[in-house]
Amino acid sequence: MRDVAVIGVGLTQFGELWDKSFRHLTAEAGANAIIDSGVDGKDIDAMYIGSMSSGRFVGQEHIGALVADASGFSHMHIPSTRVEGACASGGLAVRQGYLSIASGINDVVIVGGVEKMNDVGGTSATETLATAADQEWEAFFGATFPGLYAMIATRHMYEFGTTKEQLAKVAVKNHANGVKNPYAQYRMEITVDKALNASPVAEPLGLLDCSPVTDGGAAVVLCAADKAREFTDKPIVKIIGSGQASDTLSLHGRRSITTLDATVHAAQMAYKQSNKQPADIDFAEVHDCFTIAEICAIEDLGFVKKGDGGRAVDDNISPIHGEKPINTSGGLKSKGHPVGATGVAQIVEVTQQLRGDAGNRQLSDPHVGLSHNVGGSGATCVIHIMEVN
Amino acid sequence: MRDVAVIGVGLTQFGELWDKSFRHLTAEAGANAIIDSGVDGKDIDAMYIGSMSSGRFVGQEHIGALVADASGFSHMHIPSTRVEGACASGGLAVRQGYLSIASGINDVVIVGGVEKMNDVGGTSATETLATAADQEWEAFFGATFPGLYAMIATRHMYEFGTTKEQLAKVAVKNHANGVKNPYAQYRMEITVDKALNASPVAEPLGLLDCSPVTDGGAAVVLCAADKAREFTDKPIVKIIGSGQASDTLSLHGRRSITTLDATVHAAQMAYKQSNKQPADIDFAEVHDCFTIAEICAIEDLGFVKKGDGGRAVDDNISPIHGEKPINTSGGLKSKGHPVGATGVAQIVEVTQQLRGDAGNRQLSDPHVGLSHNVGGSGATCVIHIMEVN
Repeated sequence: MRDVAVIGVGLTQFGELWDKSFRHLTAEAGANAIIDSGVDGKDIDAMYIGSMSSGRFVGQEHIGALVADASGFSHMHIPSTRVEGACASGGLAVRQGYLSIASGINDVVIVGGVEKMNDVGGTSATETLATAADQEWEAFFGATFPGLYAMIATRHMYEFGTTKEQLAKVAVKNHANGVKNPYAQYRMEITVDKALNASPVAEPLGLLDCSPVTDGGAAVVLCAADKAREFTDKPIVKIIGSGQASDTLSLHGRRSITTLDATVHAAQMAYKQSNKQPADIDFAEVHDCFTIAEICAIEDLGFVKKGDGGRAVDDNISPIHGEKPINTSGGLKSKGHPVGATGVAQIVEVTQQLRGDAGNRQLSDPHVGLSHNVGGSGATCVIHIMEVN
Repeated sequence: MRDVAVIGVGLTQFGELWDKSFRHLTAEAGANAIIDSGVDGKDIDAMYIGSMSSGRFVGQEHIGALVADASGFSHMHIPSTRVEGACASGGLAVRQGYLSIASGINDVVIVGGVEKMNDVGGTSATETLATAADQEWEAFFGATFPGLYAMIATRHMYEFGTTKEQLAKVAVKNHANGVKNPYAQYRMEITVDKALNASPVAEPLGLLDCSPVTDGGAAVVLCAADKAREFTDKPIVKIIGSGQASDTLSLHGRRSITTLDATVHAAQMAYKQSNKQPADIDFAEVHDCFTIAEICAIEDLGFVKKGDGGRAVDDNISPIHGEKPINTSGGLKSKGHPVGATGVAQIVEVTQQLRGDAGNRQLSDPHVGLSHNVGGSGATCVIHIMEVN
């Protein structure tokens, strides 16, 4: 397998974008990534697009062809493939693009992620998001995602003594990071008191424990590492590990609801391929769709011992100046969570940090970063480990 | 890139399956393929699933994890990825599985395709199928697929003198083949007169020019060719060429509406990789969602000259005993068209023919077969060329 580098990244603004359509978002993110990469349209061999539920949100399937068309590539007839794994759709699209270069079949691939969740027809965002859960065993009985993650949180509190204050501190930290990210949906500081007193959503989770409903697009340009210098003189960021795993679709089928085994297995795969250990990871973007999810993630990724995630928050390991910065972008909580775009946007943040392009949220000289993208309540997980030379 | 073989194939019955759910179909097709392949569940490294619009048809996204779970693989935590490209979803899933083995990352991959189109909630099948067209430029104005293909047919008649009788003969031939396929939805002979006098759908297409709304599943087990003999003593069928291309999502954007450029470009890619020419292809499964689509396909694949597709039907080149048998399975027309399953089911038929397992529709000693799977009105095309040693 060939080495693969990320040579260009692009985002749209994340937020409630009432004046931007689904296809506008894809083209804007893609154009930004192409400009950043130095490639010309004609250099691109293939496209992969992550989108969770364009069919329900905007009444449009066949997204691969749509994005190629909306981006002006239809005359090149390039292969364009949509990949779906609920909120892990973006990370899966990156993995497919990565594999297609590693296999030798492509040299340059653009990977996009997109979701338009506001100003949409049909059912509510919450109802469509629940199609990532098990319709027959969960959603049919009224369990939507805030409720499922509330059960995870409740059990985590029971087993490990995790507190609502610790959950609140995750939100406070991610909002503090998001203030520094010009693309973030919510650029406002919050306090622990404000988080604890926010409207309840599903006990113990309040409004500020939940990631928002977001419109947005993200794109990255991947390239065979040995050709990257033909296009860019920026630092070369390589994907050195890619892991993916699945689990039961429904929460009740798992051996434990406080451990996401898909995270554990995807991480093992990525650590093994990259020959890295959790201690080698300088920083990570993790899937904080709810505050409890970030606490489970840092445990399941091996950054702290199982059950210690809440106490690690008290110990301040995860702010930008902590020993293991988590979600420097603001995370899903503050940057926003356009579900199909999130996994790609995580790769954007890790790349920018590794290149030293992260502005006033830049970490001090990071070498190795990790992205962690989850679908549903943990039935899909995809992880990438990236290194700058 | 490593060589890849198809070592197992499986289907469910195609039809109106009121007593089988979406997840039942996936598990049944997968089990049939696994039994046929000789692999054990633990040998499987990854899964890819093609499904066009499960989110709208059955209110369920996150299909990769669902299928792994429904198939009993959740405890193995294997990577499982859903791929979507409208009616080409199945072919795209095969291509992603193929690439993941060719890259060296996987040895054994199961690829499934599934769609449940009857007994579903929400909008009609026709409305959901129209999400494969351009919602903003086509479907919004009332153009559904019968209408789009009717425009292609009308123009083909105008440019090349193609007749309604020639369209009817495609349906008659595919029904004759479908009678011999125990998995086909419509196992009944029809006549040219019956086709010409069927209820009009969109002039010049009548009811018997149109593929039906179908429930069904299909699966194949792919394996690194050099490991295939560890599992099976059946003839080894290799994928020797894989091509994929895109085009404008809407029909009006094309340089011609009687040539599907995505087919032309995907075919070039597959012919080049396999070092084969159209004349080397012994038989093909082509995407006859409408009768006119089969006529365009045999032209765009290079089997006959552009414009000669209708006359080739008169010349009887495409029946089972013709010089270039097309759709020995019965095609989408008679076998049925569960949209996400179709591209995988085509691989099943090509494999069975090449292995000599096609029962009373078996061709005489074929060596090279081709599958041609189209999304929408031609915005996505994926082609595989397969050879038996």
